[in-house]
Amino acid sequence: MAPLLVDIHTHIYPPSYIALLSARTTTPYIAQPPPLTPTSPLPPPRLIILPSDDDPSLPPSARGRPIDESYSSINVKLSFMAQHSIATSIISLANPWLDFLAPASAAAAARAINDDMHALCAAHPGRLFAFGTLPVSAPTPAFVAEVHRLAALPLMKGLILGTTGLGTGLDDPALDPLWAALQATQLLAFIHPHYGLPADVFGPRAHDSGHVLPLALGFPLETTIAFVRMYLAGVFERFPGLKILLAHAGGAVPFLAGRVDSCVRHERVGGQGRGKRDVWDVLRRNVWLDGVVYSKVGLRAAVEAVGSDRVLWGTDHPFFPPVGDEEEDGGQWLSVRMNVDAVTEAFKGDEAGAEGVLGGNAVRLLGLDLKVGEERTGDDTGEEDGEKSEDDVHEVAPY
Amino acid sequence: MAPLLVDIHTHIYPPSYIALLSARTTTPYIAQPPPLTPTSPLPPPRLIILPSDDDPSLPPSARGRPIDESYSSINVKLSFMAQHSIATSIISLANPWLDFLAPASAAAAARAINDDMHALCAAHPGRLFAFGTLPVSAPTPAFVAEVHRLAALPLMKGLILGTTGLGTGLDDPALDPLWAALQATQLLAFIHPHYGLPADVFGPRAHDSGHVLPLALGFPLETTIAFVRMYLAGVFERFPGLKILLAHAGGAVPFLAGRVDSCVRHERVGGQGRGKRDVWDVLRRNVWLDGVVYSKVGLRAAVEAVGSDRVLWGTDHPFFPPVGDEEEDGGQWLSVRMNVDAVTEAFKGDEAGAEGVLGGNAVRLLGLDLKVGEERTGDDTGEEDGEKSEDDVHEVAPY
Repeated sequence: MAPLLVDIHTHIYPPSYIALLSARTTTPYIAQPPPLTPTSPLPPPRLIILPSDDDPSLPPSARGRPIDESYSSINVKLSFMAQHSIATSIISLANPWLDFLAPASAAAAARAINDDMHALCAAHPGRLFAFGTLPVSAPTPAFVAEVHRLAALPLMKGLILGTTGLGTGLDDPALDPLWAALQATQLLAFIHPHYGLPADVFGPRAHDSGHVLPLALGFPLETTIAFVRMYLAGVFERFPGLKILLAHAGGAVPFLAGRVDSCVRHERVGGQGRGKRDVWDVLRRNVWLDGVVYSKVGLRAAVEAVGSDRVLWGTDHPFFPPVGDEEEDGGQWLSVRMNVDAVTEAFKGDEAGAEGVLGGNAVRLLGLDLKVGEERTGDDTGEEDGEKSEDDVHEVAPY
Repeated sequence: MAPLLVDIHTHIYPPSYIALLSARTTTPYIAQPPPLTPTSPLPPPRLIILPSDDDPSLPPSARGRPIDESYSSINVKLSFMAQHSIATSIISLANPWLDFLAPASAAAAARAINDDMHALCAAHPGRLFAFGTLPVSAPTPAFVAEVHRLAALPLMKGLILGTTGLGTGLDDPALDPLWAALQATQLLAFIHPHYGLPADVFGPRAHDSGHVLPLALGFPLETTIAFVRMYLAGVFERFPGLKILLAHAGGAVPFLAGRVDSCVRHERVGGQGRGKRDVWDVLRRNVWLDGVVYSKVGLRAAVEAVGSDRVLWGTDHPFFPPVGDEEEDGGQWLSVRMNVDAVTEAFKGDEAGAEGVLGGNAVRLLGLDLKVGEERTGDDTGEEDGEKSEDDVHEVAPY
């Protein structure tokens, strides 16, 4: 039997969020480019979410990326899941979440979007769970209240969080009430990049390679910096029970943790850098990593850094769709295949390890009940059962 | 017999360079802090090399780092080598090299410093080799001439290069004459960071952890960005025979290469990002990595990315000296021990692989003649020879 696939990293913009972006004219926003000639049809709308997307040197029809219903339709998500034999997805609002909202409207918008996401999950029991969204710009009591409200929604398994916090990063001591609420509720915080790095670090020729530099480097380096700042600020001393999931296999954290460890141990200046918990101890007790890393080399480093039971496979859908014929292969997206292959290659000869990363770890960590509302055949205790529902149901391996 | 240790990453500021820095008053410079009281002795001079070092909120005696003769004395280097059983070092000028010099004086300064470095090596045959320095601010013909001059100096095994190039990065097409000269001479270019990332990415609390964020993250992320920019700009298509050595195990390149690969293959915008050589192919044909990564996880990812014959152990001496009692262990520096342990742990059960990284790879890649001027006993074809000179001579394993 093919291993259970659970997608920990899969985004959606519910229709209420699409409406919010379409009403805006500055990043983030959705823009309708004008027709190329007065009589030609309208080109697809464009999603402008990265600062580098809003490039006035490009025509409106080439800025950002085309946005279609794959971003907002749960049916497209479910088709994508069926096409790739993904049993269950933990959906999350895509970046930049509600970071840009004025404080006065943020709390209500978060509640509405979280309720929408929860209703989507409730309509597809066992198939969909969600990470909620926080109104980070709202006053602290409002976002702490939303954490506790999320914890009471049974299909909410955590929340997704950008790296800016209240404006100056996740190492801000004013975020302690958030960490306290997360520790108390044991909700998983999925820390995800959006802002990347300042454009000048990519130089004057960055545009020649489109989105490659901000997406391939800006995103993971942002996550890396955010986590290390949290670590150095002592967040994991003050909240030793905090559970965080780092996007894109931790950015570059698994590879750079040794250098962080060394620099802390060699720092002459007193202060926050020294006397902290060992960074490897934090990685192995407080941190989970997704498997969105596109290589065996990266996947194996992630597994070695946090343990094979703490890496959780994901797709980053609907981002990174196929762009050409050569990237279609039996209807599978190249981006999905790269991340499945990374796991199977990294775990060659260790089927149980691979099955954990591909799905079992997520089931155990989040306590997912995959059978609610499903017509299941057989039981879920072994691989002897050759029967399978028409509905692509997978079993959880018995370990 | 203990494996041969060759240090590929070890810096020195020759006295002529110390004089250059001491005459300056802006970064990079060496400053003499005033005595704490009129009658107290002078505190040690301070080396201010990172932009973040020159922090006016700190007293002059706490800015940057204390500089002593370990930075300039070849005898200190040789003692450090003996203390750690390092047979041979490939010394290089430390950052920021000659980046700050006016064009008019750069070429002469480079020649003088390179001749000084070569003379140091010639005085310690078999023990010391060097990477030269380029006058990057000089007119192109001048730095190309220096490449060819270095190639004719027998103990020069390559050159060390920062990431700014002519001011806008190593992806500048105006650097093609440099890459052409390096390809023609087959000198190895050791690409090393200095400038890090803009301070704002580390946030308002960065100073609380001293140098940790700029050194632990800024440095390797700078290298990562520099290499990927070179890759995207097609440098390795135009110069398929180029040989580069990336500092600090490539920054985060081994971990992020999969994401770079994916982003290139998913890029919708035409242009430089697409149709390039596969990044993994570039890593395995054009790139070597040092082993200065301080963890088994990182070392193993480096080895998997480029191959076990292309990772070269190093110390980063004289940086990262012990800072406290707990970091002295039988006279061995913690920073050295961490990088030896990373290799031995990553290669458990593969002694030949470990020996290659610790020294054999460097001997083969650079064609090092370790026996010049040495009193050697035995031969270099095996490990049966139990004799050893008093002088800590190591053998090259026969593979």
